Amino acid sequence: MKFTYTGIEVKDLDRSIAFYRDVIGMEYLGRHKVEGTGAGEVAAFKDKDSPHVLELNWYTNSKYREGSELDHLAFECQDVRREVERLIKAGATMARPVEVRPKYVVGFVKDPNGIWLELYQERA
Amino acid sequence: MKFTYTGIEVKDLDRSIAFYRDVIGMEYLGRHKVEGTGAGEVAAFKDKDSPHVLELNWYTNSKYREGSELDHLAFECQDVRREVERLIKAGATMARPVEVRPKYVVGFVKDPNGIWLELYQERA
Repeated sequence: MKFTYTGIEVKDLDRSIAFYRDVIGMEYLGRHKVEGTGAGEVAAFKDKDSPHVLELNWYTNSKYREGSELDHLAFECQDVRREVERLIKAGATMARPVEVRPKYVVGFVKDPNGIWLELYQERA
Repeated sequence: MKFTYTGIEVKDLDRSIAFYRDVIGMEYLGRHKVEGTGAGEVAAFKDKDSPHVLELNWYTNSKYREGSELDHLAFECQDVRREVERLIKAGATMARPVEVRPKYVVGFVKDPNGIWLELYQERA
């Protein structure tokens, strides 16, 4: 598994996009709406020197408060179900059952600090 | 400025190092004690495919609670004071005054969500 992006939750997507694009100066990769679980909208940024992505997550039904800032750390995997099982045996806890989405298989576990780790794999 | 690492706060450094090294399988770059402001200990990890670092921050006087998980996002800069000033004019807020440490000049501002952004530059 590979650590590929850091997802933060934001209160106002337009304002946060402007901040990370125009003020911080990161490369803006675009935005797209999300439906179903976690409905809202997502935007992504990167720097030219690194493949690591900063993802901004905005949720339709968000109750943003202190503690919402870190949304999740994301890891690309070859087999999400196997990795979820392995991590749980090793002390991680389940955060959300594995879901098969149109393009990705996605699972969430919590690390020893309660931090959500997203495991994802592209579907063949 | 370049987005170079993601810093999370951890409750138990040994346990978190074991998790990210042995379970997640990231490359362990080492750990070192920190004195003064933010006293505690820091460990760092990366993946072989990316220069992006995951930093684990453990604080001696931590009052870890929901909301502590994301410690900061870090950006390497050429001139910390100039960038802090620029960001504050652009709507960021001051989190901690610029400090000159033995090896680095370091400043912290908050993004529009209240997320701490560390700006740092190596001293000549």
